[in-house]
Amino acid sequence: MGSLTVTFEDYEIEAPAESGETILEVANHAGVRLASYCGGRGVCNQCGVVITSGKVQSKDAARWYEQPTEDGQGLRVLACQSVITEDISVHVPLRSRAEFFTIRDIAPLAGELVDLDRFPPLSPLTRQFVLELPQPSREDATTDLDRVLRGLLADDADLAPVTVDLPLLRELPTALRDNDFHVAVAVTDAGPTRTISTVRATGAAQSSLGVAIDVGTSTVVVQLVDLTTGQVRGAAMRRNAQIAYGEDVISRIVHTQQHDRGLREMYEAIRDTINDILGWLYDRHAVSPEQVIAVGLAGNATMMNLLLQIEATPIRHTPHTPPASLLPVFEAGQLGLNVHRRAGVFGHAAVNGFVGGDITAGILAVGMHKSTELCLLIDVGTNGEIVIGNKDWLMCASCSAGPAFEGVGVDAAMPATAGAITRLRYDPGEDSFEYETIDDQPPRGICGTGLVEMLATLVEAGAIDRSGQIDTSPGSERVREYGYEAEFVLLWAAESATGEDITIRQHDIDNLLRSKAAVLAGITVMLENLGLTAADVETLYLAGAFGAGLDVDSAVAIGLLPDVARERIQVVGNSALAGAYLALMSGRARQEANDIAASLTYLDLSTDARFMDEFIASDFIPHTDLSRFPSIQT
Amino acid sequence: MGSLTVTFEDYEIEAPAESGETILEVANHAGVRLASYCGGRGVCNQCGVVITSGKVQSKDAARWYEQPTEDGQGLRVLACQSVITEDISVHVPLRSRAEFFTIRDIAPLAGELVDLDRFPPLSPLTRQFVLELPQPSREDATTDLDRVLRGLLADDADLAPVTVDLPLLRELPTALRDNDFHVAVAVTDAGPTRTISTVRATGAAQSSLGVAIDVGTSTVVVQLVDLTTGQVRGAAMRRNAQIAYGEDVISRIVHTQQHDRGLREMYEAIRDTINDILGWLYDRHAVSPEQVIAVGLAGNATMMNLLLQIEATPIRHTPHTPPASLLPVFEAGQLGLNVHRRAGVFGHAAVNGFVGGDITAGILAVGMHKSTELCLLIDVGTNGEIVIGNKDWLMCASCSAGPAFEGVGVDAAMPATAGAITRLRYDPGEDSFEYETIDDQPPRGICGTGLVEMLATLVEAGAIDRSGQIDTSPGSERVREYGYEAEFVLLWAAESATGEDITIRQHDIDNLLRSKAAVLAGITVMLENLGLTAADVETLYLAGAFGAGLDVDSAVAIGLLPDVARERIQVVGNSALAGAYLALMSGRARQEANDIAASLTYLDLSTDARFMDEFIASDFIPHTDLSRFPSIQT
Repeated sequence: MGSLTVTFEDYEIEAPAESGETILEVANHAGVRLASYCGGRGVCNQCGVVITSGKVQSKDAARWYEQPTEDGQGLRVLACQSVITEDISVHVPLRSRAEFFTIRDIAPLAGELVDLDRFPPLSPLTRQFVLELPQPSREDATTDLDRVLRGLLADDADLAPVTVDLPLLRELPTALRDNDFHVAVAVTDAGPTRTISTVRATGAAQSSLGVAIDVGTSTVVVQLVDLTTGQVRGAAMRRNAQIAYGEDVISRIVHTQQHDRGLREMYEAIRDTINDILGWLYDRHAVSPEQVIAVGLAGNATMMNLLLQIEATPIRHTPHTPPASLLPVFEAGQLGLNVHRRAGVFGHAAVNGFVGGDITAGILAVGMHKSTELCLLIDVGTNGEIVIGNKDWLMCASCSAGPAFEGVGVDAAMPATAGAITRLRYDPGEDSFEYETIDDQPPRGICGTGLVEMLATLVEAGAIDRSGQIDTSPGSERVREYGYEAEFVLLWAAESATGEDITIRQHDIDNLLRSKAAVLAGITVMLENLGLTAADVETLYLAGAFGAGLDVDSAVAIGLLPDVARERIQVVGNSALAGAYLALMSGRARQEANDIAASLTYLDLSTDARFMDEFIASDFIPHTDLSRFPSIQT
Repeated sequence: MGSLTVTFEDYEIEAPAESGETILEVANHAGVRLASYCGGRGVCNQCGVVITSGKVQSKDAARWYEQPTEDGQGLRVLACQSVITEDISVHVPLRSRAEFFTIRDIAPLAGELVDLDRFPPLSPLTRQFVLELPQPSREDATTDLDRVLRGLLADDADLAPVTVDLPLLRELPTALRDNDFHVAVAVTDAGPTRTISTVRATGAAQSSLGVAIDVGTSTVVVQLVDLTTGQVRGAAMRRNAQIAYGEDVISRIVHTQQHDRGLREMYEAIRDTINDILGWLYDRHAVSPEQVIAVGLAGNATMMNLLLQIEATPIRHTPHTPPASLLPVFEAGQLGLNVHRRAGVFGHAAVNGFVGGDITAGILAVGMHKSTELCLLIDVGTNGEIVIGNKDWLMCASCSAGPAFEGVGVDAAMPATAGAITRLRYDPGEDSFEYETIDDQPPRGICGTGLVEMLATLVEAGAIDRSGQIDTSPGSERVREYGYEAEFVLLWAAESATGEDITIRQHDIDNLLRSKAAVLAGITVMLENLGLTAADVETLYLAGAFGAGLDVDSAVAIGLLPDVARERIQVVGNSALAGAYLALMSGRARQEANDIAASLTYLDLSTDARFMDEFIASDFIPHTDLSRFPSIQT
């Protein structure tokens, strides 16, 4: 077999290799599945690995990159472009593993958050009308377009004014005559006007589908929706392929600035991510892309800029302005999405570079813009966004939370799918964990909800202290050294589905604490600015990476949330996706979403001197000042 | 030199040729300038010649075409694709001569027809605003688009709603920052909304230019206009290159049906014709295409379909419907016009396949839609269109006049440029002609105006009879045989600039008579339908190929016009171009033009049994029933 050896450290695999093979080829033979979308052409930038010992050569200098890892422990290279000439050892970061990008089925949104009855009547972004038009004759010689408009307005006089563009005009004569003037006409709500997007055989109208997409920095979620009824056909999620270029939006913007094709690469990564999920949903639900004639998008300003291929540099620099708040309705073909090329695309409006359409969508979904109560919306994604207000006023802020609760930067983390630990409680007396997993499958890792409970129970048990340090005093066999840091074993290999211990390391805890500290500091400073305290909050909506199963006691106990009465806290899940769905289905929702964006006031925390103080004070469980958390037993 | 000979009959040139040369190559060496735009690739279809003796071989079978001439006197081939292997004789039809397509300067429209004061205020299709916007700051962190909108609406609050598209959004951040937020913003009136078309350095605003284009079946005319003042910088015309595919719209539609690339070829021919004139105007007036940010088009329905690359077949078949009457505002880049790619394009609305935007434009320009008098508008182009009505009602009809008065199908005809005979009177006693030419240059040919007077004076002198037959009885040395027909010498070679006799042949007269018969028959049937006679017409506008110098007595004398009191007749020139210009400059004009198209009633002459009878009776000078022409001395 091979005369050389490639050691994949993380997998404890020593793979035989021939001189001249690439790391990607060797990995494939050895069953180590690396993320790769470009077929090894060095284009997609997904298969980055770290060479921890030995050297490799470049297959193609033009595509080659070598960069030191953050900790200086090796060189990061693209596996597909790295040719083996000697024995090497390789570390495969989580984000370079194929499984990290696996598409997963998720439960469709349900309940109040997506209740369309709040936004009557049903009026999807794109509606399909079946028209049986009279054939032109001497007696009725009106033009093709006027004939179609007459038919449309007879069905719904409120459509006017209806416009068309040249591509539609070019298709119109043939589309009408090929179908004997019996056609399905799709009309997209383009703000001040309606636009005819397609004229097709009536068969096309049998199922008008749309997709609602949450374009997250770390995770992209897509719901396939029946536009006629609003029923969700299916939903799925995947990691954003842009993660290969950096975990936060700033590092991705920097990439667009530092590389000639940077903006294009970043666009292709998010486009491919979305299309990957779409293709998966189409397969699973026997749908053709041509059936999908409307798209609702919610994403932060950077994600939207990158998807729209708009220069994102101004978002990075003060005062962090995106190109537009309200977005026009686009054509899907302009974005390269794998739906009908003329599908209408509604993107939720951003307030600024840090409070994007995901937040205006979330406000729409939780309905705080129509509430008489003082509401607090917290969306913990890769950034943490906070909105306070009610029907009369809304104020928002953003803080750089980092993606820890989304499982990025926490080795044992995993999405909320089968085998994910959602609850766990440590009994230090018995030295045992009680836990629950999704679908009662053997545990594979911990999802965001479980991470909150893990912190709460570990601090309660004294396994970590209130500053988050793992107790390394001798005595517990669960605590051991891993490299330069301490590691705490949550579940032993015998219990886990992977056959390996499920552990939490010091840097994981540090990441989680910084995330929650940023969120809590943001909330505290905003409330103070308004002369309010946590006690004034009548409803707290927690949105984002957490499922409905989140234990709110734990969330307050670790100081992720302020000390609000538990019955006032609602864990709402993916409110951004819910808002995208509502806008897809209701013109009133689209209008309210735009009104929300126009009326939101922004508080810039980065210029508020108290924020950094509060952040440091909040990097503690739950906070250095326990008087802020009267309900917590200490 | 060459061992073979190519005889160019029309030029009396015997050109030496080598076996293997193409006719085009030989013609070039011999100074016979053929029309050719594709560099001899067999693509542009302009260099068709007739082989009257001998045979040629195909250079490239794929591009070769051979077709019998209408009279069966030879085979029509492409000169660039025909290789010489033996002596041949070649006839070069007028439409294959380079000079036929020469671009000519014309006088800009002037007077009442283009008086913008009738359509206040000045509001060009695309307006340019110079905005000195504040730089984004923490205190003023609004988005790029909102910043621009704020600046625009501060200048003109009536602009709202203003929309943008994705390409503009993509350019916006860089355009603003590259110019320190001091920019020229072009805003196009796109019907129910306004659209930002460009954001550029302020220098771009120094001269905002537009073009008004009359897209005629035979002739294309372009006016270069200062959008700020309405002042015309220059105007020029050229033959439509589509003539190579047929002289009337029907034969061009048939070409699109019979050839896979037919629609594309027809589009390219008209696009290239327009761009050819544009380029010429740019050179002459030191203008860059980027300065031209608005286009006003007037053309018949077929011309518009072909320019827009829309399937034209439905126009050919009953009930002759174009794809749309009102057209959306297009982007010039979609049409391939050599102006700023994002220039707005307003096309005048058509009523149906035979009453196009050229007529609605003409009605707008003459103002009959606002008149209290009974008006009659006659536009004699390749088709003849007739409109009757006033401010309360408007009825229109179309008749297939043919392009004879535009000089197509009349050998001695030429455009109204230097050396064109505009007036002529025959004194049979002296056997002499008195004439006037444009710019008092030696005569080269006869323009449309002169053709009318020529018919009138020849019939008055008895040189042709009232059926149009040349008097071939012996006695006049001006009458001679030319091939199978009679020819009448108007001016002897000694007098002419070309050094050749200027003559009129029997088929020329027949063509002219058929043209005028179609127009007169149309008018007569329309008036009858309305229970009116010529005496009821209070104002008659004669538009089209005729200049202001047309002698209206002659026009009535030959029965081109009905016998309306002469002081009621106004020769208005190119009213279609005037309408295109007005729409380019005034929003009120655009609105009125659209209203005109929506309110016009169409009378289908082809289904009216009386039309054919009237046509036959009108194919006479002035008409078989002289009682219809009481003012004419007989």
